Amino acid sequence: MSTTTPAGFRASGVTAGLKPSGRRDVALVVNDGPDRHAAAVFTTNRVEAAPVTWSRQVLTDGRADAVVLNSGGANACTGTQGFTDTHTTAEHTAAALDVSAGDVVVCSTGLIGELLPMDTLTAGVTVAAGALDEHGGAAAAEAIMTTDTVAKTAAVTRRGWSVGGMAKGAGMLAPALATMLVVVTTDAVTSAADLDAALKEATRTTFDRIDSDGCMSTNDTVLAMASGASGVSVDRADLTGAIRQVCADMARQLIGDAEGAHHDIEIIVRNAASQEDGLEVARSIARNNLFKCAIFGRDPNWGRVLAAVGTTRAAFEPHQLDVAINDVQVCRAGGVGQDRSLVDLEQREVRVEVDLHAGAEEVTVWTNDLTHDYIHENSAYST
Amino acid sequence: MSTTTPAGFRASGVTAGLKPSGRRDVALVVNDGPDRHAAAVFTTNRVEAAPVTWSRQVLTDGRADAVVLNSGGANACTGTQGFTDTHTTAEHTAAALDVSAGDVVVCSTGLIGELLPMDTLTAGVTVAAGALDEHGGAAAAEAIMTTDTVAKTAAVTRRGWSVGGMAKGAGMLAPALATMLVVVTTDAVTSAADLDAALKEATRTTFDRIDSDGCMSTNDTVLAMASGASGVSVDRADLTGAIRQVCADMARQLIGDAEGAHHDIEIIVRNAASQEDGLEVARSIARNNLFKCAIFGRDPNWGRVLAAVGTTRAAFEPHQLDVAINDVQVCRAGGVGQDRSLVDLEQREVRVEVDLHAGAEEVTVWTNDLTHDYIHENSAYST
Repeated sequence: MSTTTPAGFRASGVTAGLKPSGRRDVALVVNDGPDRHAAAVFTTNRVEAAPVTWSRQVLTDGRADAVVLNSGGANACTGTQGFTDTHTTAEHTAAALDVSAGDVVVCSTGLIGELLPMDTLTAGVTVAAGALDEHGGAAAAEAIMTTDTVAKTAAVTRRGWSVGGMAKGAGMLAPALATMLVVVTTDAVTSAADLDAALKEATRTTFDRIDSDGCMSTNDTVLAMASGASGVSVDRADLTGAIRQVCADMARQLIGDAEGAHHDIEIIVRNAASQEDGLEVARSIARNNLFKCAIFGRDPNWGRVLAAVGTTRAAFEPHQLDVAINDVQVCRAGGVGQDRSLVDLEQREVRVEVDLHAGAEEVTVWTNDLTHDYIHENSAYST
Repeated sequence: MSTTTPAGFRASGVTAGLKPSGRRDVALVVNDGPDRHAAAVFTTNRVEAAPVTWSRQVLTDGRADAVVLNSGGANACTGTQGFTDTHTTAEHTAAALDVSAGDVVVCSTGLIGELLPMDTLTAGVTVAAGALDEHGGAAAAEAIMTTDTVAKTAAVTRRGWSVGGMAKGAGMLAPALATMLVVVTTDAVTSAADLDAALKEATRTTFDRIDSDGCMSTNDTVLAMASGASGVSVDRADLTGAIRQVCADMARQLIGDAEGAHHDIEIIVRNAASQEDGLEVARSIARNNLFKCAIFGRDPNWGRVLAAVGTTRAAFEPHQLDVAINDVQVCRAGGVGQDRSLVDLEQREVRVEVDLHAGAEEVTVWTNDLTHDYIHENSAYST
């Protein structure tokens, strides 16, 4: 149920001392092959962290032998020194594993704008290299946690091959991606091109469809590595399906553990004229603070849903809009529908359905409510 | 210091019983002429309330004799019945004032998705018509309050003429406009065309530059009326200047009374390649929940500022970005600058300056922090 579920991978997670808490903070995932195909999707934030700049370069040839990840510091907005530090981390990891630094992906997460304590980090990498294990996936997943309350892992097993993964991320969850680090592994026999296409398609409808707080991070990385160790050749469609399933599982876990959230909100936009329209409408609702506060207060305030929809450029007629919250049709044809008091918002999971009556496309986005705990966690994070 | 500061206007604010609190909830502002020029700026939300639809129509000929405003219900998302109710309100007001219903602007504010109790409202209008007074501006300003904690009025006096105004709005403050109702009056002798141009230019750099919570309402209306009662002819530039001053004053008051806010945050983006770029960057910061939580927590977390800037399409190079918070240069050239602990965030007013080093344009947007009180007010509003 982790990155070490597929054959050909070893992983570890150790305590280097980057986190004041003394918890695990350095992780390694190593691909022992025979293949070393790799692909990644990165944040689209133009202020990208040094590890993202480095890792983009590593992935240009579709190969990676290992990924080293640290929590306890994002190494973002750290200038030239930050990039040098990432390079040093890759070199140190490469030396410990006897591979080329140019095949080592680096991921960092934590506070922005602080340099990493490099001696602590490189010492931790040495320990992590010594701790690599075929069953090390769970420890690695722990080591990438920041404000996450639980480690997130997933896996699916097919006939003779599998896909596994780990993820972290609790705040700054927004398209594209989040303060999200994800490593997906597979022992399928595939090509670098198929792996890249499968990962892109899988993230498009999973990680790109969760939006906890509308904030996009500087460090997001979703990395996929294929070892070929199962010996089973898999076509692109099957590979995409399996990776999507693992990504969807982890995306749902991220929303379920979002900072301070009390409700997980599934926003389904039906009968949109296009996928783009549906996505714009769903995201507009997902980012509406007033709506998110209302759900926290167990108030089925559908007027705020309509007010959010009205700010989009999507095709629809206001007098045709329908809104249901947890199966109660609170808004019909742009006006008052069933009694809002019928809506039960006691459960953690909330479903909001908006019918645009403008086409045949459907889009789902997951978000969270906006709570006192979110304010608390995010007003005190760096202090 | 209100809508009745300029000559030629009477106003009133009375208790009709729309608000459970028993506070004033129906206001009238009447233009006694000799001119009845009027212009307005409305919400760009496509889900617009019935009064907005009505009032757009009223203003097409550049004339309005009166405006009737109610709190205690927005009459938004209320379908055909809602529009009929607005029409009835205008007819009733027109009869009480002996004017044409087609010259009566209607504004409503309060909860979305509920029909107004029309008997209560029309009875209130009758009382309000009887209470009209040359000094009634303050009472009118009280009657349009919702979650506002103070009434907002302003006025400027020039040589022989003046501009006055009242405003309400505390949440859903965002471009374009907010849950904002504003009435601006002047006794200048002008034309309908000049009044329209002056209002549009004045709102562009005032109400359109405040963004409390990124949420745009269905009811926003900024109405200007000119009586010509001063007998002083005023050119467009002077009129624009005076209206801008009144609007800027009230916009600042709206931010200062935004729901649950502890800090008023001035975001100044310097050296942008264009006004559009500067505005996109400023709004991106103003809508970043993590940044707004950090300010609430008195944490000068400049990394969140950079992460917000990085999501825009504005022209800039990440390694050139400078950020100052309350005059401390916490970020220089995209990296660590002065020690963040030097930043004092004890005062209510916070200034964030971002230098894009990409041009010569400057844009200022005002926003608020995101606090426990905001969550509390907005999770319990309709219940």
